[in-house]
Amino acid sequence: MDNFNFINKTKIVFGKGEESNIGKYLQGHAKKVLIHYGGGYLEESGILDRIIQSLEGSKIDYITLDGVVPNPRLSLVYRGREICRDEKVDFVLAVGGGSAIDSSKAIAMAAEYDGDVWDFFTGMEEPQKALKVGVVLTIPGAGSEMSESSIITNEVDNLKYGVDSPVIVPEISILNPELCMTLPSNLIASGVADILSHLFERYFTTTKTSIVNDYLLEGAMRAVLDIGRKIMGDPKNYNYYAELMWSATMAHNGSLDRGRTSDWGSHRIEHEISALYDITHGKGMAIVFPAWMEYVKNENLDRFSRLATEVFKISSHSFTKLELADQAIEETRRYFKELGLELSLTSAKVPTDKFEDMADKALGKSKFIGRFKRLNREDIISILQLAK
Amino acid sequence: MDNFNFINKTKIVFGKGEESNIGKYLQGHAKKVLIHYGGGYLEESGILDRIIQSLEGSKIDYITLDGVVPNPRLSLVYRGREICRDEKVDFVLAVGGGSAIDSSKAIAMAAEYDGDVWDFFTGMEEPQKALKVGVVLTIPGAGSEMSESSIITNEVDNLKYGVDSPVIVPEISILNPELCMTLPSNLIASGVADILSHLFERYFTTTKTSIVNDYLLEGAMRAVLDIGRKIMGDPKNYNYYAELMWSATMAHNGSLDRGRTSDWGSHRIEHEISALYDITHGKGMAIVFPAWMEYVKNENLDRFSRLATEVFKISSHSFTKLELADQAIEETRRYFKELGLELSLTSAKVPTDKFEDMADKALGKSKFIGRFKRLNREDIISILQLAK
Repeated sequence: MDNFNFINKTKIVFGKGEESNIGKYLQGHAKKVLIHYGGGYLEESGILDRIIQSLEGSKIDYITLDGVVPNPRLSLVYRGREICRDEKVDFVLAVGGGSAIDSSKAIAMAAEYDGDVWDFFTGMEEPQKALKVGVVLTIPGAGSEMSESSIITNEVDNLKYGVDSPVIVPEISILNPELCMTLPSNLIASGVADILSHLFERYFTTTKTSIVNDYLLEGAMRAVLDIGRKIMGDPKNYNYYAELMWSATMAHNGSLDRGRTSDWGSHRIEHEISALYDITHGKGMAIVFPAWMEYVKNENLDRFSRLATEVFKISSHSFTKLELADQAIEETRRYFKELGLELSLTSAKVPTDKFEDMADKALGKSKFIGRFKRLNREDIISILQLAK
Repeated sequence: MDNFNFINKTKIVFGKGEESNIGKYLQGHAKKVLIHYGGGYLEESGILDRIIQSLEGSKIDYITLDGVVPNPRLSLVYRGREICRDEKVDFVLAVGGGSAIDSSKAIAMAAEYDGDVWDFFTGMEEPQKALKVGVVLTIPGAGSEMSESSIITNEVDNLKYGVDSPVIVPEISILNPELCMTLPSNLIASGVADILSHLFERYFTTTKTSIVNDYLLEGAMRAVLDIGRKIMGDPKNYNYYAELMWSATMAHNGSLDRGRTSDWGSHRIEHEISALYDITHGKGMAIVFPAWMEYVKNENLDRFSRLATEVFKISSHSFTKLELADQAIEETRRYFKELGLELSLTSAKVPTDKFEDMADKALGKSKFIGRFKRLNREDIISILQLAK
């Protein structure tokens, strides 16, 4: 077990109708709020109205910024920064899923920084402070509601980079599972794949002894596999959406991987796909992750065979470790297919002629990405070929 | 899944030698520290010296209060309160295990309250504020280093009551697994039983759908069973102590049971045993919990049979649910025995002639304790008889 520090200050308010209490929760914490979101659905559904009424009821001033899209754009972050500065905003409230939250976090950093906020994403500078961030979650999956990450697409240079910093951990996140009960099933499936990918990244560690985290991650993976199936079979059941929402938060809030390395190589690869082509991150991960697994399995067959026996419940008796590993990969693909997700870039209608460019961008200034197997340029291209 | 709020602000610093950095971590957070602990071991081992040197190095003033014993006493809390007030202490630093931490939390509340701190434990009053609390953990098990609980023994009235409040969640907890590597094996065994009991209390829920927490709790239980055995078989292995320490914290920091009820009936019963007789809480739980299981199993045989199949890995094929439940209870007892713990009050040399008194005190002003089965006076006495 490696040394670690851990703190996560996000206050979670989980339950029906809680978005209508946001004003009460922000009292004393915010004077002027930027409500940041994307899409007409939040307006049509009345969710936005309820939030605004609650802020007005608590006499908290606000301004809105619409326009968040999946793989949120740097240009909108710049616009948010100007609004925050001009309007003396002190709190950014994201309404939506990972994209709205990540965009809000980036705006919160940008508003408190005199340089170009993109410096944080390229690793040139480290954020020192940010406006406070809050969340009303409507799409479960990304886990950004209780994480220290923000991932932004620089649409001019076609780059998608992330930053991790304690200054952008949300102050408060409102989780009302009812808000995601009307989402289309393909967004739910994408969310499930996203959650699983966050657990997989943590599971494929290089840390030799990490007993309690291994068991917790296996438990979480089994839960998510179970919840995904249940929600597809009974899409009106509040409890399953509640489970999905909470598992997404737990998968990415840092509590299940203390004292061990994680991988994140396949996330870096997927980011370059969704930077170029507007595929949701979860759908991209469902394609890239099994390809990554295939490519790296021989690095540690024990880990893959444990995934087979402990998570997919394949009996170990009559198989070699390699056979078990292959079955774990096959089960992963089968599960994504069961959710209605595509298993290859071609079937997802993602062009496959820019693998070298993607590899260069995934690497950025590094020679390698990932930890379970350190991937160089050729490795990344090979994984993209397997995902083809 | 039930509605819930969740926040846990404790900063965890996990790693070798970190107690020697306590001064650095407290800089800006404490002017005068009360170092609160018990036993000569902390002095002889040099642990206390390292903490004091670190505070001195950071020019943080301090005063010490020795005298914590297992099942920490109210009288010492009163003494701590006087010291804090007289010496203008603004930070209470617990050095030790659950007893030192719980005593420190009680002192922190008492110092900021004009009435009798015992009011909080009887439920007459609710704590509104407390001095800041920090921890250098030396005995893993209680999980108080990242919890909102404090349990204190009123030795005049022979009562042992607890209070839960966000105001006593520690600001910082230093977890250095090396500090518990010299503990005698019976204290390690008691800690393992304590951790398991915290997971059991959460597992035996009345909440109908709680998928992700069920899987996480099962994972945590399997991990603790595994870690307990590994540490007994290889008591010099740093990694196993690290796993034990972190699993104790995770088991009780509130992250594994959001949105579901827990039971805590057997904790209430055990507290009355250790209030009267100085048995450590973990040893008491290893006796009381299997008796509780035996008594309540028919309330929900599904839950007990799931414990058998998912945690103890008993094949479900050839057994009835009742048989599986009985095997889960038997396996629990067998595990505690394997750790060298006693399985009955008699073998632990605890007198068995005050069950009625214990039942009355466990109930206090309530008619029932516990949730999985609501236990009245007769139920409590019956469980104590089974534990005899």
